[in-house]
Amino acid sequence: MAGTFAYLGPEGTFTEAALRTVSAAEHGVRIPARSVPEALEAVRSGEADAALVPLENSVGGAIPVTLDELITGSPLMITREVLLPVEFVLAAREATPLAGLRTIAAHPQASAQCRHWLQANVPDAVVVDVLSNAAAAIHAAAGEYDAALCAPIGVGRNNLTVLAEKVADRAEAVTRFALLSKPGPLAPPTGDDVTSLALSIRHDQVGALLAVLTELAVRGVNLSRIESRPTGEQLGTYVFFLDCTGHVAESRVGEAMRGLRRICAEVWFLGSYPKHRLQPEAPVPAPKGLTDDDFADSAAWLAALRGT
Amino acid sequence: MAGTFAYLGPEGTFTEAALRTVSAAEHGVRIPARSVPEALEAVRSGEADAALVPLENSVGGAIPVTLDELITGSPLMITREVLLPVEFVLAAREATPLAGLRTIAAHPQASAQCRHWLQANVPDAVVVDVLSNAAAAIHAAAGEYDAALCAPIGVGRNNLTVLAEKVADRAEAVTRFALLSKPGPLAPPTGDDVTSLALSIRHDQVGALLAVLTELAVRGVNLSRIESRPTGEQLGTYVFFLDCTGHVAESRVGEAMRGLRRICAEVWFLGSYPKHRLQPEAPVPAPKGLTDDDFADSAAWLAALRGT
Amino acid sequence: MAGTFAYLGPEGTFTEAALRTVSAAEHGVRIPARSVPEALEAVRSGEADAALVPLENSVGGAIPVTLDELITGSPLMITREVLLPVEFVLAAREATPLAGLRTIAAHPQASAQCRHWLQANVPDAVVVDVLSNAAAAIHAAAGEYDAALCAPIGVGRNNLTVLAEKVADRAEAVTRFALLSKPGPLAPPTGDDVTSLALSIRHDQVGALLAVLTELAVRGVNLSRIESRPTGEQLGTYVFFLDCTGHVAESRVGEAMRGLRRICAEVWFLGSYPKHRLQPEAPVPAPKGLTDDDFADSAAWLAALRGT
Amino acid sequence: MAGTFAYLGPEGTFTEAALRTVSAAEHGVRIPARSVPEALEAVRSGEADAALVPLENSVGGAIPVTLDELITGSPLMITREVLLPVEFVLAAREATPLAGLRTIAAHPQASAQCRHWLQANVPDAVVVDVLSNAAAAIHAAAGEYDAALCAPIGVGRNNLTVLAEKVADRAEAVTRFALLSKPGPLAPPTGDDVTSLALSIRHDQVGALLAVLTELAVRGVNLSRIESRPTGEQLGTYVFFLDCTGHVAESRVGEAMRGLRRICAEVWFLGSYPKHRLQPEAPVPAPKGLTDDDFADSAAWLAALRGT
Repeated sequence: MAGTFAYLGPEGTFTEAALRTVSAAEHGVRIPARSVPEALEAVRSGEADAALVPLENSVGGAIPVTLDELITGSPLMITREVLLPVEFVLAAREATPLAGLRTIAAHPQASAQCRHWLQANVPDAVVVDVLSNAAAAIHAAAGEYDAALCAPIGVGRNNLTVLAEKVADRAEAVTRFALLSKPGPLAPPTGDDVTSLALSIRHDQVGALLAVLTELAVRGVNLSRIESRPTGEQLGTYVFFLDCTGHVAESRVGEAMRGLRRICAEVWFLGSYPKHRLQPEAPVPAPKGLTDDDFADSAAWLAALRGT
Repeated sequence: MAGTFAYLGPEGTFTEAALRTVSAAEHGVRIPARSVPEALEAVRSGEADAALVPLENSVGGAIPVTLDELITGSPLMITREVLLPVEFVLAAREATPLAGLRTIAAHPQASAQCRHWLQANVPDAVVVDVLSNAAAAIHAAAGEYDAALCAPIGVGRNNLTVLAEKVADRAEAVTRFALLSKPGPLAPPTGDDVTSLALSIRHDQVGALLAVLTELAVRGVNLSRIESRPTGEQLGTYVFFLDCTGHVAESRVGEAMRGLRRICAEVWFLGSYPKHRLQPEAPVPAPKGLTDDDFADSAAWLAALRGT
Repeated sequence: MAGTFAYLGPEGTFTEAALRTVSAAEHGVRIPARSVPEALEAVRSGEADAALVPLENSVGGAIPVTLDELITGSPLMITREVLLPVEFVLAAREATPLAGLRTIAAHPQASAQCRHWLQANVPDAVVVDVLSNAAAAIHAAAGEYDAALCAPIGVGRNNLTVLAEKVADRAEAVTRFALLSKPGPLAPPTGDDVTSLALSIRHDQVGALLAVLTELAVRGVNLSRIESRPTGEQLGTYVFFLDCTGHVAESRVGEAMRGLRRICAEVWFLGSYPKHRLQPEAPVPAPKGLTDDDFADSAAWLAALRGT
Repeated sequence: MAGTFAYLGPEGTFTEAALRTVSAAEHGVRIPARSVPEALEAVRSGEADAALVPLENSVGGAIPVTLDELITGSPLMITREVLLPVEFVLAAREATPLAGLRTIAAHPQASAQCRHWLQANVPDAVVVDVLSNAAAAIHAAAGEYDAALCAPIGVGRNNLTVLAEKVADRAEAVTRFALLSKPGPLAPPTGDDVTSLALSIRHDQVGALLAVLTELAVRGVNLSRIESRPTGEQLGTYVFFLDCTGHVAESRVGEAMRGLRRICAEVWFLGSYPKHRLQPEAPVPAPKGLTDDDFADSAAWLAALRGT
């Protein structure tokens, strides 16, 4: 893939940092978008070849809107996931003792994630809300505030000095981004893939969700994530977003998806793509009875019984 | 089908009566066998084209041996089931008041099934054990005992007179027989079929049986019967005999069987054949999402997603 | 327990052999009954203190009648199970070469279980049906037939000589007997107990049986046996007989039984009693989260939340 | 309840509007907090008696932080839920034709929710990001921008004129708020209650989530919402937030919670409170077999069997 990449802007946020880990995007054209819908619209309209948007556990609250966008409008497919550790820094125009800071610019959700650190280390500073992590760095660089709580990418871009690193209260926070394109040929299985699906069911009945999970469990397909979202169209109708282990080209995933297709009001296939692991980890092979060979064997056995 | 039919003898029992409801057998050759294994051996050796043996709820305790035989030796297939109401009669050489009967010949399990009736109606008669329902009629005809507890078929054959009809304590008892042949082409689905399977699993774990039932439930395949039998080969290993709704040629039954094949130690396909209904009853069609069309639709959807 | 013990006769069968392994019965009065219903009636009427009847995998086809009897009439409780290896012997009045035997008396199910051995070792002998294993020995002792296929207990009793031991085709066959009494105080848990239940559900729906198994599985209660029996009262209504691991006094068994009581048409508690093991084997303790302590802990937690 | 109520500020947002539907808060003291953690801290520190914060489907992305806060720090309990339809208005200092608007102040997520309406009705206006819906109204009132996209509550407070009502792309959007207090005596069941729970399990295995849902399903407890959140403490460990039908004082809810307590790493009870219905709807009573009476009956039955 080459060419033009939209992303949730502005420049200098975690999303840009994540996009630059994608080699084609590092060497291609990168267009910041004002919102997730705008980034996706750039792909749908053909203005961009792909868009990177936050999917999960983001600092910017973008998740619901990304999920909602994935199942409305013309179809888009996740072709890649990017995990990026969330590391906030406290930065200023020049090296300053923390005790001397009176004002700190921060996006409200950034300051919320660093709340305990801020209380412990700069208890007397006033935290001023700004519109994004990138804006915080820009305001600090402009001298409007003494310091900024921002992403590392904002430091160099605005010629700031780091006063403190890794100031988030939770050291292990990670944001997960999705690279989205128009549907096209699928990349083949790598042996360590994720398949993303969305399903609509009535889930005021626990039985409906049990039925969905049972379709997966019977084929040995594991879940790595589940989210429910009201559809907004009808009270009591929900959409579930699932990330499953495996690739749509694998027998067990395919049969599970066929089962879901039969029992759900609607199923959206959002893509099969390689799992991004921050630490190398051996993928878990399909368990006994659930490999492609096992499916082929059972199909051959049945065909023989049927005399077909 | 025509030709030679073995059955569990001797002549004059319920099994012969059941066999004679099969038109080809009524006009063909009927050979009584001394035991279920002998009847089946007649088919395996080619001596008979088919054999009728009791399968379920029999008066003669033949069930376990039939089940055991079905999964040992060369394969046999159920091509038809025959249900026969179990109706015992009390019969004698000539019309006699019940109060005058001193001895009644009966197979022990026949007298057990009529115990309450005998206590209420012939409390003073001595019940003498004999080896079969047919033997009871023969002994009574020979004058060795005053009367016989026997099947209706034994009355005419031995020129007896019926003293009392329907003397069984449970009026609705039914015996189910199976007509067995060597494997051959399957009869096509009728829309109201039964599929018989045997499975070996370790069932000291409830989880193993739950897994089996879940494979069926996920495909909407109902059970009309389940029996467990220890295999005798290894302590704690069991074989389950299942009767399922539907025909192996139906998608939902086929996919369920493929799933069982993958998770069970062994699966025996014992046949798909029309359900015998004593009272006409509308068959239950495959529920929404589980028809052959639904399976075809989901397969086409998946193929399109995979680009295959 | 002491006193009078009924058992499925006649004398000299496996049931008598099994009863004599029960110390109180060995020293008490033993009454052979003509049938399982008669044996149980002896207990119900007070004539006997307890009755031993075959429960599972018997040679005599007595199982269905035992199961049926357990859920009709006034309640009886299993207080003990007895396992007895099924070992047939070939015996005669005096030592004789096998090749010289022309007639062998055998109960039809005994000869069925030894069929392959008989074909291989006495191919030319005629097997004559008799009414019980005990009767076979008696007939041979009387000189009516050259030999008998019988239980070891029949040898000494009739002063016979063993011509061949362990002649059953399946070496490991075991019969399981139940000692039944009127309901009384339960023996306390031993840590390795079995609880027998019967349930009535409509089981033409796989969902009903799944629901039953799920009630057990959720509380970690394993099944060691499951049998289905049509009730005879209403077409399509079945009774399931279950043997579960554990004792009714254990929390997990109790909560599972309460759940079954709520979802089933009827539940019969047939007893909690020590598991009889032919080979010593360490009992499996309740898994993590399902011990009595875990149940007590969760009850205390809930009470605290409720403020009760 | 009376006294002091913290809420997610600033003044003039949907959260304040929601709080004012609570009678005690309408007549009590209301304190806007800068963030959800600050609002909750006000309760934990005793500064406020209760706090109202958005829980689900909010426009401000506040959900994850609310969920995270509920399971960290000293316990808080949901005592009430408040549903508020999300209705955006376009407002200005004076009545103005839409065609004449050049600049519109809006919180980024508000403009995202009204994107299609804005494109269709004010295609030439520039949308300027501001920090909150309240800030949008304030900026418009100050004349900095021609109009504001804001909550109805912002109109009167800033003396604005409504140019267009209900401009959100999804007419039925609702935000759900939770009123949180320190744990205290529970309100009794009303017959139409919700119980909120959080659970930690390893959910890379579909089996773990299936086990959780099965504990609920077995007791007939329905889910009205499920969310998963990574804990941040350990990769692959997730916390699930569940809303269940029923009250902790009901037998079926209590037994299900006991089951969850036994199988989950940790269970947080977040409250049982009346369901807030925007349209009156008859509550669904506990199904057959799962009423408090059914639980009491099964407990009495078991106690009788145990002789306790």
